[in-house]
Parts: sequence; structure tokens; C-alpha cells
Amino acid sequence: MHDPKVAALEFAHQNRQRFLSELRKFLTIPSISTEPERKDDILKAAEWLKMHLLALGLQNVQIMPTEGHPVVFAESNTAGVEAPTVLIYSHYDVQPPDPLDLWQNDPFSPEIRADNLYARGASDMKGQVLASIFAVESILRTSQLPINLKYLVEGEEEIGSPNLPSFISANKTLLKSDFALNPDTGMISADLPTITYALRGLAYFEIYVYGPDHDLHSGTFGGAVHNPAQALCELIAGMHDENGRVTLPGFYDKVRDLDENERQELARLPMDEGFYLAQTGAPTLWGESGYAPVERTGARPTLEVNGLYSGFIGEGSKTVLPARAMAKISTRLVPDQGPDEVYEQLQKYLKANAPTTIRYDVTKLTGGPASISDLDSHAVKSMLKALSDIWGKQPLLKREGGSVPVVAQFQQLLNIESVNCGFSLQDDNAHSPNEKLHLPTWYRGIDTYINFFFNLVNN
Amino acid sequence: MHDPKVAALEFAHQNRQRFLSELRKFLTIPSISTEPERKDDILKAAEWLKMHLLALGLQNVQIMPTEGHPVVFAESNTAGVEAPTVLIYSHYDVQPPDPLDLWQNDPFSPEIRADNLYARGASDMKGQVLASIFAVESILRTSQLPINLKYLVEGEEEIGSPNLPSFISANKTLLKSDFALNPDTGMISADLPTITYALRGLAYFEIYVYGPDHDLHSGTFGGAVHNPAQALCELIAGMHDENGRVTLPGFYDKVRDLDENERQELARLPMDEGFYLAQTGAPTLWGESGYAPVERTGARPTLEVNGLYSGFIGEGSKTVLPARAMAKISTRLVPDQGPDEVYEQLQKYLKANAPTTIRYDVTKLTGGPASISDLDSHAVKSMLKALSDIWGKQPLLKREGGSVPVVAQFQQLLNIESVNCGFSLQDDNAHSPNEKLHLPTWYRGIDTYINFFFNLVNN
Repeated sequence: MHDPKVAALEFAHQNRQRFLSELRKFLTIPSISTEPERKDDILKAAEWLKMHLLALGLQNVQIMPTEGHPVVFAESNTAGVEAPTVLIYSHYDVQPPDPLDLWQNDPFSPEIRADNLYARGASDMKGQVLASIFAVESILRTSQLPINLKYLVEGEEEIGSPNLPSFISANKTLLKSDFALNPDTGMISADLPTITYALRGLAYFEIYVYGPDHDLHSGTFGGAVHNPAQALCELIAGMHDENGRVTLPGFYDKVRDLDENERQELARLPMDEGFYLAQTGAPTLWGESGYAPVERTGARPTLEVNGLYSGFIGEGSKTVLPARAMAKISTRLVPDQGPDEVYEQLQKYLKANAPTTIRYDVTKLTGGPASISDLDSHAVKSMLKALSDIWGKQPLLKREGGSVPVVAQFQQLLNIESVNCGFSLQDDNAHSPNEKLHLPTWYRGIDTYINFFFNLVNN
Repeated sequence: MHDPKVAALEFAHQNRQRFLSELRKFLTIPSISTEPERKDDILKAAEWLKMHLLALGLQNVQIMPTEGHPVVFAESNTAGVEAPTVLIYSHYDVQPPDPLDLWQNDPFSPEIRADNLYARGASDMKGQVLASIFAVESILRTSQLPINLKYLVEGEEEIGSPNLPSFISANKTLLKSDFALNPDTGMISADLPTITYALRGLAYFEIYVYGPDHDLHSGTFGGAVHNPAQALCELIAGMHDENGRVTLPGFYDKVRDLDENERQELARLPMDEGFYLAQTGAPTLWGESGYAPVERTGARPTLEVNGLYSGFIGEGSKTVLPARAMAKISTRLVPDQGPDEVYEQLQKYLKANAPTTIRYDVTKLTGGPASISDLDSHAVKSMLKALSDIWGKQPLLKREGGSVPVVAQFQQLLNIESVNCGFSLQDDNAHSPNEKLHLPTWYRGIDTYINFFFNLVNN
């Protein structure tokens, strides 16, 4: 009996040159979302995708308007109601290529050097979205899709997806799925297949401390009133204890502990102290005691000062006792912390610790919950099996310290988890000159997605 | 026998209208040192003063060039080598008058309303320098000067006297005196004659804390390294203890204690908690425990944060873990603290308290020692007697929290103390629109200087 998975993989291998040539065409469109004058190119990229998805025979293919750049949508429901439905998230916009003089080729005239294809968007993420599309094509040309799928390809990721939440909210029925596949992520290296199974959440605040009602002369009044910059520093200093733990009341109450298995998995990552020292250039590392750096950045909540301002910061000396001081402070959250709870905890902390010698004001600027994939879910297991089949080794399970808003939005608005698995590499120069795509990894990525789609229906 | 002091006072009283009319002429010259295009007016004011001092019959009257605006010098040595020599410091430049639309009259067309003369420079300090000159004139026209005197009238006080230290250094012999009279100071109110007998010194620093060698993503790296903004806050928070005392090692070692007499004198000043609350608008007062606000601002050393900067301080949120953080920190010093010692103390503090997770750098920006007049000195006693004779009440003894650089420079470069006694009032709007001079106080000021000069030779 003919195995449809084997047939799809064979098709994919035979068509690599054509896949590459189509990717190169897609990469010639400078769909730079940050530049308003590129609106035509944005639309051109959306059209290109639409035509491509139509040619595959997907249904309901459309360019859906938003307040900004449109979303390309497509779906396939041929697998029947019993089969799982996968929402594939992607974006077709790219970063600006500047500084141009650091590129070795024109960023929109893709060029192959050794194993890599160099172009803006090759890795982030035109290559990734096409890997999934070519996997789908390979199956459709040789058998039929074992799963239902929906494509949501936005054009505003590089400008912070300002219209995505409202788009998702307005199209909940259309987007209804069992889980999402997010290829906008990467591997630790070409021989280390990786699933990012957890992302930290964010709660970002602005704190103002007010002292005197106007700037004072520090000679005339120094010693009479509490300097608000000093008071702010005292409040910030108290936000960590001597073990590097955050002191906001109740901050750790809902934090899920790392179990021993997970710690062992994280310990397998090639991200030891030396890695973090090299990446940061810090004199030594720092953080919550009892946890490895990779745990502290991925699996433990943290609090950072993102900005500080008070008084005179120009050249030289000005003897001002400032009227106010400001800090931007954000916390990174892990399951099951919520940004609103942290806002309350911060307010409690300030209420308990702010002296009566100053006034203060705290504003919540932005926030979103953490997300974590159930490692025992069929979707994650299907991807783990796909990766280990293609690479011939056990994949790495990585927690990412940052937040991916769309993952949180899918969770909040569609109530679905995401499998975060793409094939960019850390040295792909995403957002930098000479962005590249490692082609052997990309081909393996196409194979992985083929495997993944079949694994989803094979228990 | 005719009392020369009484004769001089009589002369002064009879000539008040002429004194006023000469002051009005001096005030029409817009000698604004901050505006380069006013250079001619600056020179005109210097010439005006020179002609005036020549007309008095003083010797060695000259306009002495500096790198910037010139100094007007004059002297009188007729009292003989046994008599004391007083160096009278003044400045003939004024602040710019902006904002012009808030003035009720043209700032350089003096106008009398009620008891006040309104014009830029009336109080700060053309009125003050002429008060001393008219006192000298009143004596010279009726007898002879009982003391020797030297005038140093600079033209750059309102731009920070950039060329004064080098001028003093280059003219030490010419300026040699027994003590200085500094009329560039004021009274607490029209019926409260005041001597400012102490000024705090200053030591101003810039501290940089360095963490990672470039800005990091706070999600990816938060938890791995010590945030330099947080580390800076922790260092600053530790610079005061729970009693509001500065923790730099040895900071209080050389601080002269306040004796009970001095505390009683300071307690007489109308500067209670209510005064400081009203002046600052702070929610409540704060400072070193065990001392009244007027003591904390005048007689105790303090440490202030003058500026703070790190990371992202624009609108909205940016998830940066900054590479560095900066603070401008200054200490106000009292006798016998020295700015260089405080620099060493700050370095010791940082060495002892800075963690190995960050690097730091501290720079001394500016500084000068505190100054205090010996209240038992003949010069101070002579002024106290003059004030109490003219006002009919015991003068107030005030410590000023700020620093007056020229007082420190005379101390350092000429090794002389200053008697700080002028007749501006707190509501004179110096540096503001509608600057004014309270004429009854000004006339009393002329009388006071006459008394003072005679008191200096009468034991």
C-alpha cells in the first residue's frame, strides 16, 4: 500500500528547486510594513500569497482588510469534522533592510552563498510561511490533507500587529480551530530541532513619584524634603530581596513550579552560564537564587527597570532637587500569573512601602499573560515526533523569556494553544543586514511539517 | 566735637533723592551678561561705575579685562596700614528680563510704585552695590574713610562667574584684604535684619553603572543579569539610613556640631515647618532626625539625587534591559567637610557596596568647601551692631543652604572670610518679572554700611 506521507515527502524532495525559486520570487517584493510608501508592495505580497493559496486549491481564499495592512486568509475543511483543525499563523511583512551598505547583496534580490539564501525576510518569515505552504502542497499533490487548516497571514507583525487583536475578535467563528501552529520561531542551531513550549507574559508599568510641587534649589531645600528621585530609588531597591526574588506581595503565589523532568529538559539546552555571559557581556550573572540562568529567563517571573528619569540629565551639573521622578518597570510573567493581578500586587507594594513624604502614581501601560503548551498534548507530541523523525534526534524543549503577542491573543480570544515551531536559526540575522535562510534546515522544515500534519491524525 | 558717623548719616539722609535718581540711571543700562549682543551695555555699565568711583575720589580706579566681561576695580588706602582693609564684592550684570509681558513697566525704565522701585537689577544687585558706594560717599563728603577698601565689581555673576577664579588668582596682591563684604545677599523680611553667616559647600558627582555591554531584550535576558538601573537604585537607596543620615563612610567625621547658642539663634528665624511646607509644596517634610528643617538645610550636610537616567523614557513601553544607568548626585557640605574628602568617601561607599554583577564609574563634576563666619570676629560683630543700631532690634543669624562660589573662592584663594549682608528681600522677584527694591530698606542699608565702616575701627 502506498504511504501518503512517504509520497508527500518524495514530492517535496523532487520539488526543492521549484520551492526555492518560488521563495526567491516572494522575497523580491519589499513588503516593508514600517514604511508607509511601501503600501503597494505590501498589497503585492498579499496578492502573491493569495494567488499561491488559490493555486493550491484551498477554499475561501481572501484578502481581508483591517484598519492597516490586510490579512490573507485561506482554509481547507476537506478532512472532515472528526479531523483536527490547525490555525497556521504567519506574516508576510518584513523589516526595513537598513543599513543598506552593510548588505553583501541587494536585500530584495535574493542571492545564494554556500548553504544560505540571503534576502530580507528569508528567515523572518517568508521562508517559514512558504515551508508550511510547500508542505501542504506536497500533500495535496500526492494525496489529501489529513487535517483541516486555516491560514492567517498578517501584514503588520513588524510594526507590532496593531490591528490583529480586533481582527481576531471580529472573526472568531472563521478562525475557530483546535490549536495553532506558529512558525515565527526558530531552532537553537541547525542540528538542534527545537520547540518553544512556553513564553513569558508581560505587565508593564509607569511609576511617578512626586515630592515638592516644583523643582527646588538643592542647596536651599536639600535636607528639608524627601527627594523624589531618592524615594523612587528606595522603592525600586525594595522590589527585590537579597535572593533576587521579587517582593511584590503574592507575586509567586500562582507561579507554577518547575518539575524535575522540565528542569532536566531545560538543562539539555546549550545555554549555560558561559552562553549568557557571552550573549550579554555582563561582568557576572545575577538572578533568583536556586535557579539556572535558562530557568530564570524562561520559567521564572522577573521584574526589570526599563527606564528611569528625574531632574537634570544634561552635561555638567545643575543643583536641582527635582519635583518628580519616573520609572518604567515591567514584570515578565509565567503561568499562572496574570498581568492584572501583578498590577494589584504592585499597588499593594507601593501602598505598603511608599512613605508619606512623597506622592506616587502608577499606570499600567501594557500586558499579557504567559503561555505554555501542554507537553502531553497530541499537537506537541506530533511535532516532537516529526522533528525527531526528520533530524534523527530528540528535539529540545525551550522556554522563551519574551512574549509573543499573537500566542497570547490566540489563547485569550480563541482559547487555543499554539505549537511554536519554525526553522529560523539564531545566526540568521533577522532584523539585521544580510538576513539569510539556511536552506538544508529549510528543506528539513518542509519535511517536518509534512510529518507533523500526518502525525496529528495517527495516534 | 562733631561725630563723623552722625555727619555721614545726615549727609545720607539729605541725599536720598539724589541717590535714588543715580540708581535709576544705573538701572537703565541693560547689562545682561547672558546675552552676547549686550556686550556694549555691559561695558557701558562698567564705565558708569568707573566714572562714579572716580568721582568719589577713590584710587586706582580701572576696568580690568578678563576672558569675558571686565572687572571694575577701585581702592582707598587713606586710613593707614593699621586700619582694616575691606574687600567689597559686587556685580554689575543682571539677569535677562524675560518674560517681558509679565512686567508692569519696562524693566529698564525704572518705575516707583508705593515703596518699591521696579527694574531689572534693582535688588540683584545694582541697588546693593550703590548702597555701599553711597555709604562710602556719605563718609568721604563729611569726613574721611576710617577703613581701607577695595572694590571688586564683576560682570559675569549671572552666568556663573566663569572668569572670576582666574582673575582672583592673578591679582592676589591687588586684592589683599582683611575680610570681604558681600552685599549679594538679603534679609528675611523688611523688619528682620539678617546676616548670612554660613554657606554650605558642594561636591557634585556623576555616577554611571554598567551592566550588559549592550541594551538587552528584557524578555530574553530578564533574570540572567543585574539590571544596571536597578543596581543604581539599590546603591542610591543605601546612601541614606533609616534616620535620614548619609551613609558614606566618614561623612560626618569632620562636621562641626551645632552648639546650643547657635541652635537658639536658628530657632529665632521665621522658618518653621509651616514655612518649609509652604515653600516646597511637599506632602510632609523629611530629613535627618534630631534636627529642625532650618538646621537640616543650613547646618547639616545632605546628599541629593539631582538627576537620574536609564533606558527608555519616552511615551509608551519598550522592553529594554538597559546597558547602563546614570545618576547625578551632590552633597551639600558644612564646616569642616571638604569636597575632595567626600569624593573619597563616595568611592569608598561604592567600593564597599557595589556588587560584582555591575561595573561603575564615578566622576567629580564640581565642588567647593563650606564657609562660615566667626560670629566672634570683629567684622561680624561690627555688622551686627550696625544692623541693631539702625533697625533697633537684634539681627537674625542665618545659615544658607546653598553655596556662594565667590565666598568660597575668597576663602580658598585670598584666605579671607566674608561678611554676607545685603538688603534684598525674599519677595524682590530677583531673576523674575517685576524685580523690585524696597526703598525704605535700601535707605536703611546705606545707613547700616555707614555704621558698619565706623564700627570696624571702634572697639
